Amino acid sequence: MRIYVYGKPQDIVSGFDDYLDPARTAIVSIDMHRGHLDPSPDCPCPAPRARDIVVPIDAFHDRARALGVPIIHVRSVLRRSGVDDIKGISAAWRRTFPLYVGAIPNSDAHAIEGSPWTEFVTRVAPEDMLVETKKRLSAFYPTDLDFLLRNMRVETIVLDGGFTDCCVLNTAFDASNHNYRVIVARDLVRGTDDPLEAAALAMVSLHIGVVVDSADLLAEWETRKASQERAAVR
Amino acid sequence: MRIYVYGKPQDIVSGFDDYLDPARTAIVSIDMHRGHLDPSPDCPCPAPRARDIVVPIDAFHDRARALGVPIIHVRSVLRRSGVDDIKGISAAWRRTFPLYVGAIPNSDAHAIEGSPWTEFVTRVAPEDMLVETKKRLSAFYPTDLDFLLRNMRVETIVLDGGFTDCCVLNTAFDASNHNYRVIVARDLVRGTDDPLEAAALAMVSLHIGVVVDSADLLAEWETRKASQERAAVR
Amino acid sequence: MRIYVYGKPQDIVSGFDDYLDPARTAIVSIDMHRGHLDPSPDCPCPAPRARDIVVPIDAFHDRARALGVPIIHVRSVLRRSGVDDIKGISAAWRRTFPLYVGAIPNSDAHAIEGSPWTEFVTRVAPEDMLVETKKRLSAFYPTDLDFLLRNMRVETIVLDGGFTDCCVLNTAFDASNHNYRVIVARDLVRGTDDPLEAAALAMVSLHIGVVVDSADLLAEWETRKASQERAAVR
Amino acid sequence: MRIYVYGKPQDIVSGFDDYLDPARTAIVSIDMHRGHLDPSPDCPCPAPRARDIVVPIDAFHDRARALGVPIIHVRSVLRRSGVDDIKGISAAWRRTFPLYVGAIPNSDAHAIEGSPWTEFVTRVAPEDMLVETKKRLSAFYPTDLDFLLRNMRVETIVLDGGFTDCCVLNTAFDASNHNYRVIVARDLVRGTDDPLEAAALAMVSLHIGVVVDSADLLAEWETRKASQERAAVR
Repeated sequence: MRIYVYGKPQDIVSGFDDYLDPARTAIVSIDMHRGHLDPSPDCPCPAPRARDIVVPIDAFHDRARALGVPIIHVRSVLRRSGVDDIKGISAAWRRTFPLYVGAIPNSDAHAIEGSPWTEFVTRVAPEDMLVETKKRLSAFYPTDLDFLLRNMRVETIVLDGGFTDCCVLNTAFDASNHNYRVIVARDLVRGTDDPLEAAALAMVSLHIGVVVDSADLLAEWETRKASQERAAVR
Repeated sequence: MRIYVYGKPQDIVSGFDDYLDPARTAIVSIDMHRGHLDPSPDCPCPAPRARDIVVPIDAFHDRARALGVPIIHVRSVLRRSGVDDIKGISAAWRRTFPLYVGAIPNSDAHAIEGSPWTEFVTRVAPEDMLVETKKRLSAFYPTDLDFLLRNMRVETIVLDGGFTDCCVLNTAFDASNHNYRVIVARDLVRGTDDPLEAAALAMVSLHIGVVVDSADLLAEWETRKASQERAAVR
Repeated sequence: MRIYVYGKPQDIVSGFDDYLDPARTAIVSIDMHRGHLDPSPDCPCPAPRARDIVVPIDAFHDRARALGVPIIHVRSVLRRSGVDDIKGISAAWRRTFPLYVGAIPNSDAHAIEGSPWTEFVTRVAPEDMLVETKKRLSAFYPTDLDFLLRNMRVETIVLDGGFTDCCVLNTAFDASNHNYRVIVARDLVRGTDDPLEAAALAMVSLHIGVVVDSADLLAEWETRKASQERAAVR
Repeated sequence: MRIYVYGKPQDIVSGFDDYLDPARTAIVSIDMHRGHLDPSPDCPCPAPRARDIVVPIDAFHDRARALGVPIIHVRSVLRRSGVDDIKGISAAWRRTFPLYVGAIPNSDAHAIEGSPWTEFVTRVAPEDMLVETKKRLSAFYPTDLDFLLRNMRVETIVLDGGFTDCCVLNTAFDASNHNYRVIVARDLVRGTDDPLEAAALAMVSLHIGVVVDSADLLAEWETRKASQERAAVR
């Protein structure tokens, strides 16, 4: 299995087998919704780089579903009144991100419950699961993701989706702290820009978990599944 | 007030006043203990870059104490039996970090309760507070830090200490998710290397909070405190 | 103010003023949905005693809204696939409660997302808030209730609703641990039977918070609000 | 196996086998320290009824250790400055319990770090574990108990110790919400008085888990262990 350690590929022949059992794994796909991805100028929190990964994520999810790996789609949803954010204690990014990118015209509409901005751009299959109370950066807080993963007896999570250097990285930290094994599919995440994407993946690879190409991961899963099935037949 | 946005200084004249009230602020100093900082070859989880900030952190804390800003020292402590980590579900860094730096000879001794490796290298004053059940990367999990900050009615935390791109960044994410205002003192944190330090500070500055020089922050606090005292005298 | 301590009324003249400020208070109404209250024999988790409090709770909420006290309706919602409960790690009550009441015919339908059993029987006003990821007994886990209350800067919560000796008591414990002041409206909660209702209220009154009649609480709030308004006019 | 459902013994022949595997079980012993149990008039939070269970708890723990069941002793510890409680946001019981029992003379000394009041009265063996940041009622908040149990891959916890109708009941609720199977040893817990003890055990038995006599539980464990050992020999 090829993994990326601080950006450099390494072939790992042993020591990470437990990361690769599809039966104990779930995919957590983060914030692939119109609020980040819509091409409209009204997009309330644009993450245009992530538009490139919509099709590859859908393809990855399809192959994962075929292997029986469950998909959990996480999205930020904020109450209409604003009490969770702009009318309560405002999320920090609303104050800090504009210092870098300038004013974000429609940002007050970000993630508002029932608005089109919360619609997923990636495909959600009937058997997929949703986690919909993300209100800040981590997919774990304040949501039922940890509860759900425990109930599913999942031990490894694979992250894809939006803002490598923000929500994806934060979710990777949280998952690792909660003792999940963490895999980040490097070709299926996008961040602020190339350098911060690379840095976030480097941080994951040093401190948190394993960075892979999704195709390599699928190949591993498929090999293992086939071998399990052969063993079961005997 | 000068802050650093993606590495570039900006003079902020308004909009961040609430970050600068010393009466609602605490300093959270992360893992400045011998397990990271000891010069011995047995140091179980060496972070030698952070040795440079021991003296500056002590000086910063002294001036903060004089202003009445409380200091909370956080350290990782693991039960002697290993049940929290190497004999339970092992922390991810034990498996991933050696892929980059090679084997870490004495890493099993890291953070073991009662060992000299948990001793603070920075000065702990009698009025300071300790948070001692950190067992993974974040200062918040599984610890009583959030509980403590709530009880103190703290709203802003200033981070200093070890691994800018790991425990400091993770703690910044957690604090922000829990709606604390986050300040990172860029001269008082150290990470894996220059690029990952810069990247972690950039991530903080874009998504999480405010990156400052500690001297500028102290100057702001001192100005505000003096002005509050003049107002009180009248 | 009259409160009930281990079932006996006491007139409290001082020491609990901070419990009575409507401006820092929210009402948390627990599981007043058809899954507990529907008269049909298919009701998946019947709590028929609580039908008596639907009208009084609606009246209480109306007067609270008029005073500007926000209402948060909490309900259990489980994913359709059963992964959160009967197909995952089953909730304990599913195994223990039938030992006392016998088999519960339609219990697998309890709280299933999108089913009529999750519909509120009490009135939900447009300005009310919903917390909908309760999956076990506490309104706090795994939900965003704590996050929401923090954002609203609420310090006191008033509980009404279902299963005095179960979800209400558990929520009271959690709220108190998280340093919210807790009030339980004794006339607006119902439990398994009279003795367990009385015992749960006694436990609240000794260890957790304040037990009151809702009419007394409303009278206190109205007095205080009027006095605040007079003060504001001057 | 005989269990108690709302106070009445029932012989359970099937359906609860998973509760009885000693290999996935830990004992959580709550607040058996001098702050509750000391006979001195200075005892800061007297729970004299629990003195009767010190010897039986020690005996139970001895037999459990012989079976390899780990013991976790939990105690409340508060920082000396009072910042966690009387100088921060005061624990509710400090205000409510005196309404029933009258003033508690030395209650400010309760659980203060480093004081004799935090010393365990029950025996702590070298291989036992401690959880020492309990600051309110639950053994889970804000502590590392959940983290520890996960690392140990424990699925069932057995509760003994102090205040059946308060910390024990609250811990049972929390454990159940977090999907641990909960057993309460009815002869090894004590509460405010007989009626509230009985009511708390009834609530556990209906909503949360299983109430047993400790002798019956030990007998089950010993039978199972012997059978496992016979199986291993073959």
